[in-house]
Parts: sequence; structure tokens; C-alpha cells
Amino acid sequence: MDADICLKEIEAALDGLLPPADGETASLHAAMRWAVEGGGKRLRPLLCLAAAEAVGGRAAEAIMPACAVELLHSYTLVHDDLPAMDNDTRRRGRPSTWAKFGEAVAILAGDALQALAFATLARTPETAPGTAAKLLAALGNGGIGVVRGQTADLDASCHNLDFIYEHKTADLFVAAACMGAIAGGGTDAQVEQLRTFAMHLGLAFQHEDDIIDDDSPIGRDEALRQVQAHTAAATAALDGLPGDVSLLRNLAERLADRTR
Amino acid sequence: MDADICLKEIEAALDGLLPPADGETASLHAAMRWAVEGGGKRLRPLLCLAAAEAVGGRAAEAIMPACAVELLHSYTLVHDDLPAMDNDTRRRGRPSTWAKFGEAVAILAGDALQALAFATLARTPETAPGTAAKLLAALGNGGIGVVRGQTADLDASCHNLDFIYEHKTADLFVAAACMGAIAGGGTDAQVEQLRTFAMHLGLAFQHEDDIIDDDSPIGRDEALRQVQAHTAAATAALDGLPGDVSLLRNLAERLADRTR
Repeated sequence: MDADICLKEIEAALDGLLPPADGETASLHAAMRWAVEGGGKRLRPLLCLAAAEAVGGRAAEAIMPACAVELLHSYTLVHDDLPAMDNDTRRRGRPSTWAKFGEAVAILAGDALQALAFATLARTPETAPGTAAKLLAALGNGGIGVVRGQTADLDASCHNLDFIYEHKTADLFVAAACMGAIAGGGTDAQVEQLRTFAMHLGLAFQHEDDIIDDDSPIGRDEALRQVQAHTAAATAALDGLPGDVSLLRNLAERLADRTR
Repeated sequence: MDADICLKEIEAALDGLLPPADGETASLHAAMRWAVEGGGKRLRPLLCLAAAEAVGGRAAEAIMPACAVELLHSYTLVHDDLPAMDNDTRRRGRPSTWAKFGEAVAILAGDALQALAFATLARTPETAPGTAAKLLAALGNGGIGVVRGQTADLDASCHNLDFIYEHKTADLFVAAACMGAIAGGGTDAQVEQLRTFAMHLGLAFQHEDDIIDDDSPIGRDEALRQVQAHTAAATAALDGLPGDVSLLRNLAERLADRTR
């Protein structure tokens, strides 16, 4: 499956999972759709589908985990933007969820998106015994990790940049890739390869974001070195995988290209 | 297992699941513990363990789902108390989580508790193929439902009391009982019996709470009639279950006794 087809499948699946914006809780449902339909790049779900192909599975087998990680990522953005957190009124060129729907509905929409993320995993076909529990553990670790990273990032006394980047950014990349490998029928060793790939990809991505925003805490030159080193380590982790790794390579190169 | 032993098992298991209050995100972990260790009655986990026994399983098989539903319930209280929601500075005779740790940490602690709730399900022994996916669907539905109920409750234009009570209160009772029945090895029909029991128990519980707080929107007399009717319907739903239903009966009677 090429990246454009993957993207269309992801958008269609997300639309089918989100509740219709009517009924007793129309405002909640509208806010959930607003948060998810804001034009994100869908990096994490693409990574999930690509990981399924890299272990020799089909991208279609990983579509529910792919949606789950995007729903979870979307909730973190809704909560990060809240006045008590980053206090952002804009996101992707339009009002953030709380700016449009109010704080209470935004808190609740984030909460519902996280619940929907996990509920979505239950729809993944059970390709092997224990698949559901493995997916759940992977998304659960990612979901806890991303909150730990945001907590450390908000804490002015925390200067452990590695900890912040690893958890705030890389943990959801790791969850996406591991879930794709699990849903695609990968062995435990292959899932670990994908974990290594995604950890480095996530760290490269965060340093790239810092460079693009021109606010790297380690300086532009050192950040560029980090991007190169992590992109190389990510690519090296793919050696020996039995499936098609072209989508994963493309993803890593497209990300690194942003800073060239 | 009697109720006192169940309670001790629940407290010990929750303590083991919550992260230690140290490290990079000590404040987050302290807030999570504060929210869970506030002296709740543990009704939902008790219901979960009792449901496992009612279908002929062992309470011990349901300990992880029991903890999961309590972690999820705890997060909803943390977020409900926030200034943008009910703005409560007190909970169970001490400062609410945001009053003690600040809004940002309280939002994050709630988010992490929800993630931990779902992650906890992955630790349930797989008694039959598909158990993990069924537990996940049950907790996912409860997690989405409780947010819909809170949204409707905060919406001054929503006067559908049945909708609010069913979702805000009964949905997590239903999740607890269904997960207990699933983990205990119950048939689909038995899980449905437990769902009916828990729905009525939850509605009776909410009307009792209204009576105790002397603020029932339907008046004390009608609320008392609702408690009686729902308690009777709950008890009737237990007919024919193969296991020990004494814990479930005790739970229903103890709750109803609060208004006598």
C-alpha cells in the first residue's frame, strides 16, 4: 500500500470511529471531531501501517491500532493546549479545541478521545492468541509515557531533555510502530527492532521540530547532528526485517528532509 | 472471598499498580496516588470481583479489571473537580487533586490514570481466547459513556435525567460487572445478566445519593420509589446464575440500606 492510499484509509477509518455530532452530547462529539480532523500529518498511524508491512504483514491488519494511536495523540494536543497547560488558542491555523468549545468540553473531549483510542484496539482482528493484550500494553505504555513527558516539560526544574523528548515525543512513535508490528504478526524480536527504529525516529523528529521552530535548547548545529545520528540509527534498525521496509525508509527520509 | 478480604486485595493491587512517588515525574505520581488513595468505598471493584464469583469464577481472576475500573473512576473524579468543571476544592474530607497539586498536574494525573486503567487490563490472565478484547470493549464503552454523562450533566439545556444517570453513574457499574463476568469465564448470556443487574444497581445508587444529599430533582418520595424498583430489578436479574451471588446481593442491599 503506498502512503497516499494509507492516508485515505486512515482518514476514512477515523471518520467511521468518531461519533456523529448530534444527540444528547452533540457538543462533545463536535469537539472530538474538531480535534481529530484538524489536518494533522497522520505520522503515527502511517508509521503503524508501515511497521505492519515491514514485518511481512498487511497494512490493513493494523488500521485499528493506527487509528487508536492517532486518537490518543489528538487527545494529548487538546489537553496540552488548555489554559492551565500551554494556553494555546490556535492549533494548525484555527482555534484550538478549548478556544472553540470552552474548557470543560475540551477536557471532556480529550478524555473521551483517550477512551475511544483504547476501545478501538478491541476491533483489531486477533491474528494470534494474545494479540489484544500485547496491543493494549503497547498503547498503555505510550499513553502513560506521553503524560510523563508532558509533566517533565511543564516542570521548570526538570532539565533532563533526553527524558522529555523520549517520553513526550518518542513514546507514541514507539507505540505506533510496535502495535503495527504486533498486528502484522511480527515476532517479539521484530517488534523490538521496530521499537528501536521508532525511538530514534521520534527523537530525530523532535530535534527537527526544534530546528524548524528555531528554538532548539541545544543549538541548531548540535540539533542537526542529533537528527543525522538518530535517522541513521533508525534506518540501521531495519536490517533483516522480512517485509517491505520502503514505507518506513520513506517516512524517516521525509522527516529528515524537513530540515534540509 | 468475603467483602473485607476482597477490599484488602483491591487496596494491595492498586498500590502495586500505581507508580512510586519519585523520579522525574514525582509530582504526577504523587497526584495519581492522592486521587486513588482518598478513601473511596471501592464499590466498582467490589462489584467486579463479586460478578466473577456470580458466574462461577474466582474473584482473584478479576482483580486486574477491578483495579482498572477503580483507576478509571478515580480519574473521572479528578477531572470533574477541576475549576472548569464542578470547581470543587474538597473531595472526601481533604483537598481535591487540583487544589493540592495545581490544575496542570491534576489534568495530567487524570490522563495518566485513564491510561493506566486500560494498561492494567493487559495484565488479566487470558482465561479464554478473546478475553482481552472483550474486557477492553467493556471498559472502553464505560469510559466513553461516563464522559457523555458528565457532558450532559454540565449542559444546562439537557433535562434528560435518565440519560445522565444511565451514563454518568450506571455505565461504570456496568463495565465493572461485565468485566468481572468476562474474567470469571461467564457465558455471553451471563455477562448480559450482569449488565442488567449493574445498570439497575447504578440507577438505584444515583437516586440514593440524591436522597442522602437531599437534592433529588424528582423529589424524595419518587426517588425512594425508583430506588426500590431498581433494587428489585437488579436482584431479579441474578436468577439462574451458576455461582455464588451472595456478595452481589449484599452489595445491592448495603446500598439500599443507606436511605432507610
